[in-house]
Amino acid sequence: MEDASKNGGLAFVCAVGGPCAGGGYELALACDWIVMADDGNTSVSLPEVPLLAVLPGTGGLTRLVDKRFVRRDRADFFCTTEEGVKGKRALEWRLVDELVPRSRLAVAARARATALAAASARPADGKGIRLTPLAPLREGEHIRYPHLSLRLERGLRTAEFTLLGPERAPPADLPGIHAEGASFWPLALARELDDAILHLRANEPEIGTWLFRSVGDPALVDAVDRALLAHRGDWLVRETLLYLKRVLKRLDVSSRTMLALIEPGSCFDGTLLELALASDRSYMLAGARAGDNRPPAALRLGELNFSTYPMPNGLSRLASRFLGEPKALERARALIGRSLDAEAALEAGLVTFAPDEIDWPDEIRLAIEERASFSPDALTGMEASLRFAGPETLESKIFGRLSAWQNWIFQRPNATGEAGALKRYGSGQRGEFDKRRV
Amino acid sequence: MEDASKNGGLAFVCAVGGPCAGGGYELALACDWIVMADDGNTSVSLPEVPLLAVLPGTGGLTRLVDKRFVRRDRADFFCTTEEGVKGKRALEWRLVDELVPRSRLAVAARARATALAAASARPADGKGIRLTPLAPLREGEHIRYPHLSLRLERGLRTAEFTLLGPERAPPADLPGIHAEGASFWPLALARELDDAILHLRANEPEIGTWLFRSVGDPALVDAVDRALLAHRGDWLVRETLLYLKRVLKRLDVSSRTMLALIEPGSCFDGTLLELALASDRSYMLAGARAGDNRPPAALRLGELNFSTYPMPNGLSRLASRFLGEPKALERARALIGRSLDAEAALEAGLVTFAPDEIDWPDEIRLAIEERASFSPDALTGMEASLRFAGPETLESKIFGRLSAWQNWIFQRPNATGEAGALKRYGSGQRGEFDKRRV
Repeated sequence: MEDASKNGGLAFVCAVGGPCAGGGYELALACDWIVMADDGNTSVSLPEVPLLAVLPGTGGLTRLVDKRFVRRDRADFFCTTEEGVKGKRALEWRLVDELVPRSRLAVAARARATALAAASARPADGKGIRLTPLAPLREGEHIRYPHLSLRLERGLRTAEFTLLGPERAPPADLPGIHAEGASFWPLALARELDDAILHLRANEPEIGTWLFRSVGDPALVDAVDRALLAHRGDWLVRETLLYLKRVLKRLDVSSRTMLALIEPGSCFDGTLLELALASDRSYMLAGARAGDNRPPAALRLGELNFSTYPMPNGLSRLASRFLGEPKALERARALIGRSLDAEAALEAGLVTFAPDEIDWPDEIRLAIEERASFSPDALTGMEASLRFAGPETLESKIFGRLSAWQNWIFQRPNATGEAGALKRYGSGQRGEFDKRRV
Repeated sequence: MEDASKNGGLAFVCAVGGPCAGGGYELALACDWIVMADDGNTSVSLPEVPLLAVLPGTGGLTRLVDKRFVRRDRADFFCTTEEGVKGKRALEWRLVDELVPRSRLAVAARARATALAAASARPADGKGIRLTPLAPLREGEHIRYPHLSLRLERGLRTAEFTLLGPERAPPADLPGIHAEGASFWPLALARELDDAILHLRANEPEIGTWLFRSVGDPALVDAVDRALLAHRGDWLVRETLLYLKRVLKRLDVSSRTMLALIEPGSCFDGTLLELALASDRSYMLAGARAGDNRPPAALRLGELNFSTYPMPNGLSRLASRFLGEPKALERARALIGRSLDAEAALEAGLVTFAPDEIDWPDEIRLAIEERASFSPDALTGMEASLRFAGPETLESKIFGRLSAWQNWIFQRPNATGEAGALKRYGSGQRGEFDKRRV
């Protein structure tokens, strides 16, 4: 759960009026304010260590010490005390924000919610938009949304995402954008991409590699980005940008290999370029293909790549990419708006490899086959470790790092089981892997 | 391995003149400079993912992206390429610092080492001291060093450390300190504590709880701290402070519960107070004991608690403790040099609990027994999560967080095995645990 306060002016108040244990208290920890009844029956607790021999499941320990700044020795006592903590001690230890007599609980929670709502930048009288249901078409290994198609190849364990650029220029003004509502291209794409990611994560654990392609007119992607930038103060545009931010973050924390394939006819510009920057590697075809009369692939940086879509570590994907080369980040800024061919993109450090038409098929095939041959666990750990260089935040600690550390990988059958690679190393036999990503 | 550059002016140069894979390259990554021969036979690689289905063992991935700032997509390619990377690409990708013809490898490495040595603050002509062998006496469950005694209680799975304060005032001047050499109290204590910690970690995995007690004259501890502070520019004093820093950090990353017991006759002042601050909880006896004519327990903050012993997260233990209460940190600074009784220490947030003589035995017994009853894996994860709030550093990522994340805990027999607590939850039976700390 992303912490409530990052939700674009939405805030959550939690009222605790009874024993609030484990998952219930984790939900409270993700809220902006916790008000608690001061009576003998009401307590908060994280009893996982004493009861279940595991840890609170969704960042509870980190939220205690890094969000609520509960002192570590008090947190230690709290997390080992089955019955939890109540009353004054809960308040003094920062486990809750407010303590009220039982009879005032509902009133106090409502008062706090009203105060938070009054401070929100969300318009009190905004007219909403209707979020029409997504209805992807499923045909065999294809899933089609209006602006995104997915194709699964089970042999290679890949899912190919093809993102379709806008078909027309964005509305000229804000009322036009509101009139488009859920079919406004960036909002529609964000919803479809989110749906596709969640579908693959939940239902296709063996599809270990996601390939990103795009098709469309770069000028139209750029025009949409400019519209988003121009109207970012509007609530609908702000929500659209926040939604895109969250969907892109979801990629960062997805335990799948991501490869971007940038070819003639693509539109990896501005917002869409984030998919390439979120990928573990990107390949950009140098030059045109024989018999293809489209111009060679190009990509373009936009203002939004620098300011609008932070990763869980709080930095833009570009800033994370160039952590050790601040000058490369400056140089990238100077390239905003320029169409970059493969050579220029490689030179600017924006893509990993730029093979020509002759090398392309083999290089891509090799990368995909190789990925399918590796231990899914080791890949999950490796990718999570490499994606988040630089600063850590509450969010990256909770969402980014869970998979990065390796102890669990050493204990998995894929490494140390009978047919595991570590067990078989030196025997001449390769390890056999459970292909599911976890 | 602590990175070389933190070693008080010591620097390491690594010369690579052949295939340098896995652990070998990890060693190189921990060095300050890597010079590599530019020939077809010389490469660096981290082949764990493709070959062994696990990750490089000691922070290799983190050092790549967080120390050497290798771009993440290049790191991805590098870590999945068994044969590694050589020559120009290794240099361009920041995998090495310098590329030289094979024939110049030794000369170039020596030149770099000479240049680093010239820039070091270590005196060129300092006379060393003799580090006499430690010879702890082992008698049954007792281990005695001159300034530290250890007592194991296998039933409760505890090790009790009793630190002995200095027996006399520190030498009045620097020559006196150099003359004492290895028997200078803080250096001797650091070596003994280090030895004891490593012994327990390597040989006593079932001893899950470490108790810290101290006995001595607080005024003498304070006098030693002042001497350290006054002469910190001297190489021997600097090495002593760095050694203490490293030993204290070793506590932070030890997968054992640590409890400090602060009683009459103790000397948890300044440097020794760090042991209480490093503990998961501290108990300080309020008031004197009947029939004990020593004054009630007291503790004292010193300048060194604020400036000299950072945790792996880069903050002092006090700053980490008061992350959410900067004012408490300021207040603590104002208390430097004052003798604080249990009430004052509790009020200042320096100890967790301050039971009186009547409650003390039960409270301590309960804490120890409870700890022995919990899953060792869950405790390891919980403690590591709670010890490092706030910023992350290369060091905390490598050393502090390895145990904090929970995935591995869910896969351990203690949780999900036949007799695991998660499996048995609700059955009325408690889980049975493998008591070894990992």
